[in-house]
Parts: sequence; structure tokens; C-alpha cells
Amino acid sequence: MHPAVSRLTLDEKLSLLTGDTFWSTRSVEHAGVDGALLTDGPHGVRLQSGSADHLGLNESEPATAFPTAAATGSTWDPELLEEMGRALGRESRALGVDVLLGPGVNIKRSPLCGRNFEYFSEDPLLAGSLGAGWVRGIQSQGVGASLKHFAANNQETERMRVSAEVDERTLREIYLPAFERAVTDAQPATVMCSYNRINGVYASQNRWLLTDVLRDEWGYEGYVVSDWGAVVDPPAAVAAGLDLTMPAAGERHAQDVRAALEAGELDETAVDLAVSRILTVHDRLREGRGETEAVDVDAHHALARRIAAESSVLLANDGGLLPLAADASIAVVGEFARTPRYQGAGSSHINPTRLDTALDAVRAAASAEVPFAAGFRLDGREDAALVDEAVAAARAAAVVVLFLGLPDEEESEGFDRTHIDLPAVQRSLLDAVLAVNERVVVVLSNGSVVSLDGIAGRVPAILETWLGGQASGSAVADVLFGAAEPGGRLAETIPLRLADNPAHVNFPGTPKEVVYGERVYVGYRWYDRTEREVAFPFGFGLGYTTFALSDLAVSVPDPARAHAVVEITATNTGDRAGSEVVQVYVGDPEASVDRPVRELRAFRKVRLAAGESARVRLELDERAFAFWGGSGWTVEPGAFAIEVGTSSRDIAASAGIALDVPAPVFPLDVGSTVGDWRRHPVGAAMLDDAIAEAGGQAAAIVADEEMARMLESMPLRTLLGFGGEIDGTAAVEDLLAKV
Amino acid sequence: MHPAVSRLTLDEKLSLLTGDTFWSTRSVEHAGVDGALLTDGPHGVRLQSGSADHLGLNESEPATAFPTAAATGSTWDPELLEEMGRALGRESRALGVDVLLGPGVNIKRSPLCGRNFEYFSEDPLLAGSLGAGWVRGIQSQGVGASLKHFAANNQETERMRVSAEVDERTLREIYLPAFERAVTDAQPATVMCSYNRINGVYASQNRWLLTDVLRDEWGYEGYVVSDWGAVVDPPAAVAAGLDLTMPAAGERHAQDVRAALEAGELDETAVDLAVSRILTVHDRLREGRGETEAVDVDAHHALARRIAAESSVLLANDGGLLPLAADASIAVVGEFARTPRYQGAGSSHINPTRLDTALDAVRAAASAEVPFAAGFRLDGREDAALVDEAVAAARAAAVVVLFLGLPDEEESEGFDRTHIDLPAVQRSLLDAVLAVNERVVVVLSNGSVVSLDGIAGRVPAILETWLGGQASGSAVADVLFGAAEPGGRLAETIPLRLADNPAHVNFPGTPKEVVYGERVYVGYRWYDRTEREVAFPFGFGLGYTTFALSDLAVSVPDPARAHAVVEITATNTGDRAGSEVVQVYVGDPEASVDRPVRELRAFRKVRLAAGESARVRLELDERAFAFWGGSGWTVEPGAFAIEVGTSSRDIAASAGIALDVPAPVFPLDVGSTVGDWRRHPVGAAMLDDAIAEAGGQAAAIVADEEMARMLESMPLRTLLGFGGEIDGTAAVEDLLAKV
Repeated sequence: MHPAVSRLTLDEKLSLLTGDTFWSTRSVEHAGVDGALLTDGPHGVRLQSGSADHLGLNESEPATAFPTAAATGSTWDPELLEEMGRALGRESRALGVDVLLGPGVNIKRSPLCGRNFEYFSEDPLLAGSLGAGWVRGIQSQGVGASLKHFAANNQETERMRVSAEVDERTLREIYLPAFERAVTDAQPATVMCSYNRINGVYASQNRWLLTDVLRDEWGYEGYVVSDWGAVVDPPAAVAAGLDLTMPAAGERHAQDVRAALEAGELDETAVDLAVSRILTVHDRLREGRGETEAVDVDAHHALARRIAAESSVLLANDGGLLPLAADASIAVVGEFARTPRYQGAGSSHINPTRLDTALDAVRAAASAEVPFAAGFRLDGREDAALVDEAVAAARAAAVVVLFLGLPDEEESEGFDRTHIDLPAVQRSLLDAVLAVNERVVVVLSNGSVVSLDGIAGRVPAILETWLGGQASGSAVADVLFGAAEPGGRLAETIPLRLADNPAHVNFPGTPKEVVYGERVYVGYRWYDRTEREVAFPFGFGLGYTTFALSDLAVSVPDPARAHAVVEITATNTGDRAGSEVVQVYVGDPEASVDRPVRELRAFRKVRLAAGESARVRLELDERAFAFWGGSGWTVEPGAFAIEVGTSSRDIAASAGIALDVPAPVFPLDVGSTVGDWRRHPVGAAMLDDAIAEAGGQAAAIVADEEMARMLESMPLRTLLGFGGEIDGTAAVEDLLAKV
Repeated sequence: MHPAVSRLTLDEKLSLLTGDTFWSTRSVEHAGVDGALLTDGPHGVRLQSGSADHLGLNESEPATAFPTAAATGSTWDPELLEEMGRALGRESRALGVDVLLGPGVNIKRSPLCGRNFEYFSEDPLLAGSLGAGWVRGIQSQGVGASLKHFAANNQETERMRVSAEVDERTLREIYLPAFERAVTDAQPATVMCSYNRINGVYASQNRWLLTDVLRDEWGYEGYVVSDWGAVVDPPAAVAAGLDLTMPAAGERHAQDVRAALEAGELDETAVDLAVSRILTVHDRLREGRGETEAVDVDAHHALARRIAAESSVLLANDGGLLPLAADASIAVVGEFARTPRYQGAGSSHINPTRLDTALDAVRAAASAEVPFAAGFRLDGREDAALVDEAVAAARAAAVVVLFLGLPDEEESEGFDRTHIDLPAVQRSLLDAVLAVNERVVVVLSNGSVVSLDGIAGRVPAILETWLGGQASGSAVADVLFGAAEPGGRLAETIPLRLADNPAHVNFPGTPKEVVYGERVYVGYRWYDRTEREVAFPFGFGLGYTTFALSDLAVSVPDPARAHAVVEITATNTGDRAGSEVVQVYVGDPEASVDRPVRELRAFRKVRLAAGESARVRLELDERAFAFWGGSGWTVEPGAFAIEVGTSSRDIAASAGIALDVPAPVFPLDVGSTVGDWRRHPVGAAMLDDAIAEAGGQAAAIVADEEMARMLESMPLRTLLGFGGEIDGTAAVEDLLAKV
């Protein structure tokens, strides 16, 4: 317990359970309690300079707008996220911010989610690893992270009331592991609960989530803060393990909690614990913080530029159209080249320290003159003059760099998209441009996947830059001219059509409920299991050089333990330096339950000079083989497939291993089937005698081969009692006593 | 209450709640209670002649094996099912059977379900209409039906323990309506509860299902019998509304119920009611029964033959290969021509009065000699000599009629399939035959859909005969030579691949749970909503003549009432008599919830002479437009699409209508969102004042256009209270009091 707790009155303690203002917690001078400042992230520091509000109406202090998570998810580089986290920590300190509200590690269940640009991936390992890097980085500067939005908050529609109806296995395997990894690897100072309900219970008052799983199972040591306005029932929230209710909830919060204490419905220990956790975290952060240094704005801008290039995914590059020569005859087309879309709308909106445009950057890098045509209006209204101008520019150039993407109002916190198409004016512009010049490079700016129907297979080069932050314009030029590699690999599948998405028939549900009917089959897990073609698979991305993976070796040091070591040689087979992401997938074809065909279980981004080779070593721990078996993680003995590749659909090498771990024993009960008894190590031996004793039909049925197969799923009590000659339930109860 | 109840002792009453033997109920002479005989169906009477068992080990009395439900589902002809029901009634009476256990109206959720051959369709309207016809027919003879398996029993795997995890809307719209229709249209004497659990509760003790829905909502008047061995907890079953536990459950059943009565956990009224229902039903059946007539075995065989032809679906007939001329040079290939597969395994297995083979029938109908080659072994083992012989026969003939299908052991009650492929020996035989003769007619015998990959588009003619009963061999010859029309239309979609099935990632679940994650998107509802190509769509089938649909007229007598009349002209545009199924689908594009693109809401099979036209009139009632809105059926005002066609993908004509029914009003509560308030007829007017009064942030946020969109899903209490200046919950409570 934090020592200040004993010096505080109940009223003071209650006052510490909610904000003092919109962004700060209270100070209690006599007890040495200093308030803390929490503010929005996660890809920059949004410290409001005017009166506070959650939703970005008022201007905030200038800060570096780093690439959004949609972009950084594509880096597949936790160390780079850590570096970005350190920079965010320095900016936070300079602005007096104690806790920056990020990272967001929710899973991209549907490309429609309006807030996907704030999340990393459809895969929990990738999201968790990147989130952990971000947390380590910012917390190394004595600034707290706030891991959000915990949990199963995968849409904006009805986010404050909808219940995510999702079975525990799916939670454990898909929606929780990114949080689990960030917590166990990096101990974020705070975890932010989400607005929604999970199986009917608000996240803010979900004791299973906030205490049983987060603290008792994962060993979480920080405090839980509510999303702004997420607390519905303050005493229930405190009882569940929610520590800090934000923003300032007024006197009503204290009244409600006090009333619950007085009624004996809540124990004061719960209040003490919450206060203690908050104060302990804030103290630790301050202790870990050195002198505040001035922020090197230029260096941070340069870092943002480097990350943006590492986030850019080159989806197509037919005939090596990219990189462009500096003296190439280039036309730049598309309003986004001049008016960059580089971040999303809502609480994460940053007031950038500066803003590069791709047009300026391309012109600076090119030695020839670069004509520009806007081509379309951002408001979606048709404008024939703009198209004509663009066509003229395209006709006159050797190569057209066409900037397409989603306008601001198409994706945002607060609502979801209803389609994944680019605006019609942009699609018709592309048609018009292609009609006069086929050498087109499409550069995309969007926070979540857009349909590439009409683009993929039709234009020779496609560069997906996501929402790349304030330096994205320069980074695009770096990549286009080859000053930087396109280092990104897809952190989410690009489907052929929205209708192919696993959540298509369930998203976003009714006002009060959304069914996670696809269960664990999210992203590539769905496309693989349903044998569906995709536009571009998870993990995919081209570079300016080529790589080969060879000499896969998988060793299992001790077959009785679920642990394997994967080694493979990566060789840069091209003529320039570059990077590739080595991806290890595991499949469990003999599982007793349905499982995804393959799941990402380890990855490493390697950077190699031309012709260079490296031996990459990756370890697979127990969880790499496990599924959630109802009451815990389960690894079954038998064969597993280890696949190594550069995307979920580009497997370069695979190997089978066998684990000789003990088979899980499912306890028998009165409802157990004949099949259960047959599979049970002790029960199996008793089965035949029991059936023989029961006599009559039971024995005859079991003796028949075809019937026996039908009876696998018949409870033994039903079989023994069939015909009413003996009491099946009593007979099974006797047997159970012997087992 | 049945008058005998008051004359029975408690022990006697308890003895009537379960079977006397495997197939019969008890008599109590002094009270005038006669036992009744219940026996397996549904496509024939399976009266065991030796000692009784549920699973068909012992021989049964000869009876007509009519086509299975997989076949009769394809007739789309409730009147024909009624005729078949009457024949079954006559056979039941002749054998002294009081209740025949059928029809099965479960929905075909997955083609893998081992018992699909006992079920009609993937569509509840079609299944329910055919089931109702069957029930009307058999009950017209004073023999009771047993509508089964109630409910959500859509797989064999773990059927005695698995819980179907399915939301109420999906139950109401997909899995219950076939039962509802058969109950409300035809009042089956008995309803049989299924083995499985539904959302955790065994069907046998599910009061919501057996009493609230079945009796209180649907007005069911018969009794509920358990599937054989389905009762787990006798007192709970009685309390839930389960009347008769089958088979004989011994003294333990009575003991358990007596103990519950003594402990006051069960009211004796529940026992009285169950006994009364059983006796009332048995009395009514006997009263409705005339003299027992001898069964005309020949007439029933002829009926079975006619139904089989009406069940056969002609999937392809390129170049008008069918019908064959009597003098054509034909080779018959395939073991099934000699050894017909005509019914499924398990409790429905009939000992047929006779058995036609296609080979004999084809030879009888042909004027030329018809060579035969078996081509493959039914046990799946390769046999090169058989293939060689078949190839030789195929080479020598002008046309090859190739009988393919699933062997007995591939589909059965008691287990599910794991794939939908034909056996490898049959697929390679087809390749070998096609290599020497392209003029191939594939005749299929299978109880559930098989993959037509490698068949569709490759052979000119495909005739799907399902499991067509004891006369299927003759019926096939009738269709092949044109003595009968192939009258069937698909009652289930044939997908391109198993992986396309909506339940693919969820079927059959874990031992204790199966998630119905695809919700209402079953069958064509899924393929349409996910824009997926199929091999052959729901409702599809060719005839030997052609039809045109024209002059669609849809009228809405009173737009304030959800009721429409659809009229369309069907014309036989070919040169011979034939039949077509006019199908009416309804779509609700403006619904406030996600809905299927189209749903079958009415259909009519029309038979027309060459050149003849008929005006078909079909009515759409309120339910044709409704979805399950949480607490009841909901029809929203606005546009609906009425589509008329000959399959879910062959829409010949469509029309839009507008309903001006009152918009449903969703009551406001303390958690209602800004959007809810805005849509509420009274609340909307109060919203602006409330926000203005709250002042501060709330008013500013709402004034901003972009923010306003984000706030649609924010609870009003959260908006008003944001920033802690006023108490949002109290403010909303005040408003609610005014509303």
C-alpha cells in the first residue's frame, strides 16, 4: 500500500478516484500527493492549450505527428516503435505530460472500423510486440503509457453500449494476447478500459477482465484508467478493479462510492488499493524521469520521416518502375500530394510541428521539372476541369505518380465506414489517367484498408503509405526515388472485396450486441481457413531488392516440452541493401479442436547489404503451440507444422515437428460420452466390463461396428440405460467413483 | 383436463410419463387408458418385428420406403407431401402404429450433417410448408405425426451434449419457423424434443422452448415426446413441458419425479397436464381413424416412384442430351445402378416392400440392348479391372449413364461427414469414362450435397436423385427417357467448395458447444450476402421444357398494413408439358438491422401444358416483411424489394413496394444514446433544450457538424455530464420522467 494512503481522509481518497479536470488528477498537499497530467496520444502528444475537451475541438500545443499505428504496424519493427516511444516520451516530458494515452493494440476485426488507423494489426502477436516496444520506449523517459482500449473494442458503432458477444477462447487467442504481451513484456503504467460491454458486462466494471485476468493472471502492476466517460456505475467499477475514472466525474462519483461503502456493498480496501496504485505509478514515473531536455524538433521530424518510409508497403512494382530516376519525366497528380492526409480524426489529432507535402518533396528530389495537377476535389464533387488538367499532365509525362486515398471525413474515431471503396472521383480519375498513360504509380493514403479492385493488376506500381504522419510527404519522395527502402509489410490482409471479410455478416451488429461469430478466424486466419483468394496477403510487401530464405532447421531440444528453435538463412539476392521480414507460422493439423491453418508465432525484420546472408534464429515457446482449452492453455502431443516465409501466403520453407508432451486428460463426469470414456486413460479399461454388465441392447449395439461409430457421442449413461433395464445414471455414478 | 386423469393414482400417472416398452406407452385398464404405439419414420414405417431397439439392428416389418426428405424437399410441393403422408398413415394404421416419428424439419446448416437426408431444406419456409403437408396427410388417417427434432439440432457430432449457441433472432428467423409453421398450420399430434442443448439448456428441459414458445406463443395443442434417451433430468423435463419420456425409462423416472413432488420442487398439476395431453392426443387420433384398410402395396410403390421423379433435380442438360430416345445406344455404368442407394442409415432405415434398380428399369424402358459395367467398388477400394470394363462399355456406347453417389457408410444418423467429395474411385472412373466418351449423364444418389467440382461444366447432363426411396430406380428411368419430368428444384445451395459454407469455421464445434456464428445467414442467405459464386443456387433445376415469367404485378391493398399480393404470369414456352416453381423473395434494403439480401417468402409449383400460361397469385403476409426485433416481430416502414424467379439467383422480375406501417418506437432509457433521443418521437424535441441547459462542452460539441456524427452513439448522460459540470445521469433521469 502506498504510504500516503494512510494519511488521507476518505473524502480525499474518493477525490483521487476521478479527475480534477478533464486531463489531470488531484493533488493533496498535506499528504504529499501531486496531481498528474494525462493526455491524448498515441502517435503524438495532444496537450490542449485552450479549454479542454476530449474530441479535439480546441487547438493543442504543437507536437510531432508521428506515423499512425496503421503505418507503424507495417514496420514489423518493435525496436523502431521503441525509438518512437522514446521520442514521444521526450515530447511528453517537455510539455509536462505524465501519461500519454496509447498505444492502441485492439485487433483489426473489420476494415470498416473507423479507428483502425489507431491500431496496429489483425494479428495479436504483431500488435502486442509493437505495442510493447512503444511502451518500453516512452516509459524509458519516465512517462507512462496507457495501453488501450481494453478490451474487445473493435468498432466505433455503438461503442459506448454495444456488447461484444465473444466466447472465451476467441478472447484468449485473438482479442486479449496483444494486451497480455504488452503487459507482461513492458508493464505499461496504465491500462485504459474501453467503453463497450463484453458478454454483457461493461469493460469498466468487468472484474474478470480488470482483476482476474489482467492482475491475477498477467501480473499487472500499474493502474486501470477508464476511457473518458466509460464509467457507468462507479462502485461497480471500483469493485471490479477500475482505479481512475476520467475525466473529472464531479461529486456524484464520490457520492456513489461513499454510499456503496456505507451500505457495505463495497469494501474500503478496494478504494485504498485503487488510490495506492494510482499514487504508486505516478511516483515511479517521476522517479524514473531525469532532467527535462528541450525537444529536438528537427530530429523528431527526421525520425518521423524514417518511420514513415519503414511503414510504406510496396504492393506492386511491375517492371521495376520504382525507384524513379531523379531526372525522370514525372507528373504528380492528386490533391493529396499537395494536401496530405497524414493522420486521422478524433482524440488522436495532433497539431504538427511542421508538415511536409509530397509535391514539395518530389520536386526537391527531382532534377527535372515536375508538373502537378490536383485531379479531384477532396469533397467528392465531380470537377471535369480538374480531370482534364490531370489527363493533360499525365499524357505529357513518362511516369505519373498518382496520389489517391481517403478524405478526412471518411474515417474517424466515433463512426465506422460502410464500404471500403475509394471515392468515385478518384476511381474515375485513375481510369482517365490510365487511358493516356499506363506508367502509373499509385500512392495511397488511408488509415484502413481500401479496395484495390481496379488498381491491383492494372497499374504497374502501388505504394501504400497509410497515414504516415507529418513527414510522410518527404518519406514518400525518399521511397519513390530510392533514397529509402519501402520497409513496410502488410499488418492486415487486403481482401478482394469487403464481402470476403470474416465479420461481414456480423459487423457492426445491433445497437446493443455484436456477435463475434467468426470466432478465432480473424484476418488471414479466416482467409486461409476458408481458402479464399485475397488481393494481398498478411505480411506481404516488396522491396527494392530480393531475398531468399533457405536451409530451414527446426530443432526441438526436448520433445516432452513445447519449445522449438527455428533457424533459417536469409540472403539478400539483389543488388542493393534492403530489408525483409522473416515470418514463422505454426499449424496444428492434429488438434482435437478446430484451429487456424497457420498462426504467426515469431518474426524478425532483417536488414542486409547486397549479397549478404544472415542466419536468423527464432524461438517458439509453449504458447506458440497452444490453444485455449476452456480452463487454460493446452498443448496436445503430435505433429505441428512450422512454416517460414515472407507472408502468410508466401511460405518459403516448412518443416514438421512432433511434440511428445503429455496428452491433456479431460475429467469424466456423469454426462461423458462413450467416446470420452474410450479416450480416458483409466476409464477406457472399465468401459467394456460396464457394457457387458449392462447387457441387453448396450452390448449388442457396441458389438456392431457401424453402430459403435454412431455411439461415440452418446453419453454412457444413455447407452447403459437404454431400454430401461438398468439405471444408466446410477451405473455411471458407480463407475465414476471407481475412476 | 382429460377425464381419466382424476381416476388415476399418482403412481399410475407417473407410469404414463414414460414408455412401457421401447416403442409403446402403458395401458391402465381401470381408467380406460389404452397404450399407444410410436415408431420410427419419417419416409416409411419402421415397425420392429423382433426385439426393439432404436438403432435399426433388428429387422422391421416390410413397408414402403418412400423418398427421403432430402428428395421430397426438392419437390417444392406440399400437396404431394400430403399425399405421401396419407399413404404413410394408411401403412401405419395397417401395422397398428399410432404415432409415426416424423417429419424432420431441421434446417440444413452444413452439408456435413450426417442426418441431412432426413431434413428438407436450408430454408425454413420451404421446410415448414413441406412438413406441414406431411403432417396434414398422415393425420388425416388418424395417425399422429411427431415433428422433430425440436430444436437447433443441426449436426450429429456430440448431438447428445453439445449446446447450440445461437442468438434469439437467429432461432426465431431460421431454426424455429419451420416448426412454427407446421404447428400452426397442421397441429402435429406430437412434437419431439431434440437431444442437444440450446444456449446451455437441454431441449428436453427447456421451458422457454417447450412451453413459452411452443404452447403459449404458437398455440400448440399436442404433446411433447422426448427423442429416445433425450431426458436427462425427469423432474426438470416435466416442469419444462416435456410430456412423454421415451423409451421406457424404468422406475427411476417415476422415483425422480415423485421425489421432486414430495420436495415441493414440482407441482402435481404439471404431471396431470402431461398425462392429460398424452391421453387427449391418443384419444383424438383413435376417434379420427376409420376402419383399417389393407394397404395397396402396388399403389404405394407407384406413388413412391412418382414422388421420386418429382424430387429429381436436373442440374445440367447441355444440348438437350436428355431425355434419351428408347432406341439410343446406352451404356449404364456404376454400381449404384445395380445396388441402389435409396435411403440413409440409422433409425429411419426401412425394410422396403420391394426394390427397383435403375439398371432393370433402364433395360425395361430401352428398346436396344443396354450393357452394364459396375465401374467401382462401394467399399472404395481401387479395382482396375472394373474401370477397364467400364471404359470399354463407355467407348462402345453413344451415351453413358453413369451412376455416382455416396456409399452407405459415408452418411448416417449418428455422425457427420468431414468432407463433401465423392469417393476417389468414382471421381477417377469419371475421368476415365470422359476420356473415351464425352456424352455422359451423371446420375447422383446422395443424402446431402456433394461437391460437383470436376462434374459441373464437364459432363453435359447431371441428374441429382438424392436418396429416392424403393422406387427410385424406376423413377430414374422415367426421367431419363422422358416418361416423367425431372420435377425437382434445389432445396439447398450446392456450393463450389465446402469452405464456402457459412458454418465452415464453426461446424461442428467443441464437444460441449457449437457457435452459430453465421447467425441468420444460412444457405443462400449467406451466399447472397457474401457475394459468393455457387455451383448451383437454391431453387434451381431444369425441366424438359422452358418457362417464362412475365407481367409481374405487386399490389399493396393498404400501405398501413404489411400485406402484399404478388401476381405473375407463368408460360410454358417449350413444346411439352412440364412444371416450374415460381419463387417469391423479399428484401428489406432500408432495414435498421442487417438482413439477408432476399428471403423466400412464397412459392408455387405450376404444371402447364406446352404453350399454356397461368396467372399465379401469391400473398405476402406480415411475417414476409418482418425481422425478429428483440422482443417481437418487427416490420419497419419504407421500401421493400419483391423479386420473383426460378431460383435465388435467377430473378425474372422484381418490383419495389413501400409500406407505410408505423415506425417501431424504441423506448428510451438512462443508457439511450444521442441518436436514440434524436429518433424518438417525443424525446427528439427535448434534446436541444437539454443540451443547451447542460451548457459548456455538450452544446459546443453538438454544434459542430463533424462531432455531431461522432456523438450519435454516445449515451446522452455521458454527453451532458462530460467535464463534470452537471450530473449527466440525473439530468437524463429528469428528462425520462418528462418523456
